[in-house]
Amino acid sequence: MSQRIVIIAGVPGAGKSSVLREAHERRLELFKIVSFGSEMLKLCLEQGLVENRDQMRSLTYPVQKNLQIETAKLISSMEGNILLDTHCTIKTPAGYISGLTDEMLEILKPVAFILVDAHEVEIRGRRKSDETRPERTIEAFADIREHQVINRAFATSFTQKCESLLKIVQNNTGEFELTVEEILQTLDYVTM
Amino acid sequence: MSQRIVIIAGVPGAGKSSVLREAHERRLELFKIVSFGSEMLKLCLEQGLVENRDQMRSLTYPVQKNLQIETAKLISSMEGNILLDTHCTIKTPAGYISGLTDEMLEILKPVAFILVDAHEVEIRGRRKSDETRPERTIEAFADIREHQVINRAFATSFTQKCESLLKIVQNNTGEFELTVEEILQTLDYVTM
Amino acid sequence: MSQRIVIIAGVPGAGKSSVLREAHERRLELFKIVSFGSEMLKLCLEQGLVENRDQMRSLTYPVQKNLQIETAKLISSMEGNILLDTHCTIKTPAGYISGLTDEMLEILKPVAFILVDAHEVEIRGRRKSDETRPERTIEAFADIREHQVINRAFATSFTQKCESLLKIVQNNTGEFELTVEEILQTLDYVTM
Repeated sequence: MSQRIVIIAGVPGAGKSSVLREAHERRLELFKIVSFGSEMLKLCLEQGLVENRDQMRSLTYPVQKNLQIETAKLISSMEGNILLDTHCTIKTPAGYISGLTDEMLEILKPVAFILVDAHEVEIRGRRKSDETRPERTIEAFADIREHQVINRAFATSFTQKCESLLKIVQNNTGEFELTVEEILQTLDYVTM
Repeated sequence: MSQRIVIIAGVPGAGKSSVLREAHERRLELFKIVSFGSEMLKLCLEQGLVENRDQMRSLTYPVQKNLQIETAKLISSMEGNILLDTHCTIKTPAGYISGLTDEMLEILKPVAFILVDAHEVEIRGRRKSDETRPERTIEAFADIREHQVINRAFATSFTQKCESLLKIVQNNTGEFELTVEEILQTLDYVTM
Repeated sequence: MSQRIVIIAGVPGAGKSSVLREAHERRLELFKIVSFGSEMLKLCLEQGLVENRDQMRSLTYPVQKNLQIETAKLISSMEGNILLDTHCTIKTPAGYISGLTDEMLEILKPVAFILVDAHEVEIRGRRKSDETRPERTIEAFADIREHQVINRAFATSFTQKCESLLKIVQNNTGEFELTVEEILQTLDYVTM
């Protein structure tokens, strides 16, 4: 069977990393995890464009776009099925930017998008207690909801473009196991 | 005047069938009703792929995609204006699937999308009392709202792609007549 | 540097005009304001299609579509950066129509979309007290929210298509200065 790419995204605080890790643990033989950002950072470092992850935000828009395409090509050339950890949109002071342009989608050809979400109260709480990045701005609930709404709209565009599945999972406290199982349903379906 | 296809969709319990029937009664000379699902089932039965409607869900994704395209071609070859009864999205355990891919839209070239919606409390109530399909799972309000949001986003993608109209009608209890009239406004406009 | 087109849109009552005027005042050297509707009206008057703005609504859909394309071409041929004042969607009795078809977007190639929004209670209040157009229908809150949701979905489609920025600003009472500053952030970013 040919390569399957499943994209998994979510706003910061939705708990994407932990559900992704657990889902991967249970389907080690089916998928490997690839982080879009880490692959792009590797390319940047190799090309001497930046010295660390934080500097990537200061790259010009055309440079970033070009790097995104190169990274997409690199990932699509990898062997086996991929759980691609990335962003649906990137929120910048100048506005939202799509995390997956049509050109990237044509390269990656994802068969499913999994959007990890949670209630805005939970998301805000998790961001507050996220001490590894204490500088992160705490957005108000309205900002989180706006980002969620925008992510769903973008994910819909991606899905329509790619004729793929769109799975939204609510990762609220106490529902971790359920969230993981919902993700596995999608992973199992696309690798049937 | 050339053929006009108007797509009418809505989540189960939104009351699409009854408003569609009534709107059709009042514009019998203008439109005929075609059900996408029924036409696809007919094709499936003819081709010996299934023995009944329920088995269609178990067809593989590539087979379903191919059937959708064939059904779209069949419908676009029909004479006269069509009120096409279909789904905006199909909700499966693995995720949402678009009911109308870009390829289908290019064949059907719909001039308008009518999305029949209702308040989630009403939708849940109607699903509960739907005794012809007693096995149907009662989704929580949040699930209904999610499906409504996703349907609007997909309908927007369809509309943008087809340069068509997007009409959303709220079919809440006691507003049946108003809902029908709103649908007729769209039907009359596109056949002016 | 080549021409930059930034599109600014919002539902009636969101206060787009005043924030647009103020943002423009502060970046006079960077942008000029162009109103899509006014340019289209000029074309209509020149071509003898209408005698005033109100008559434009009664033009047939194919005529309107053609005028939109001609107007888009006219605007893209103008010199300098443009703040393009237009509608994300037009709400008609027959349904929503996209204010920016894919064909128009390909001509205009906007680098950013700024959606000016406000709470529905504020929007309704502003519409009520808008005495220069006393005939305007006061829509219920639900209608305003629906239009806002649809606008965001369309704006997302535009953004994905154009690989542009999507900025949503909440122009609630008492936050005028903040709204203007948020718009300036986007304008400054795209002209860096």
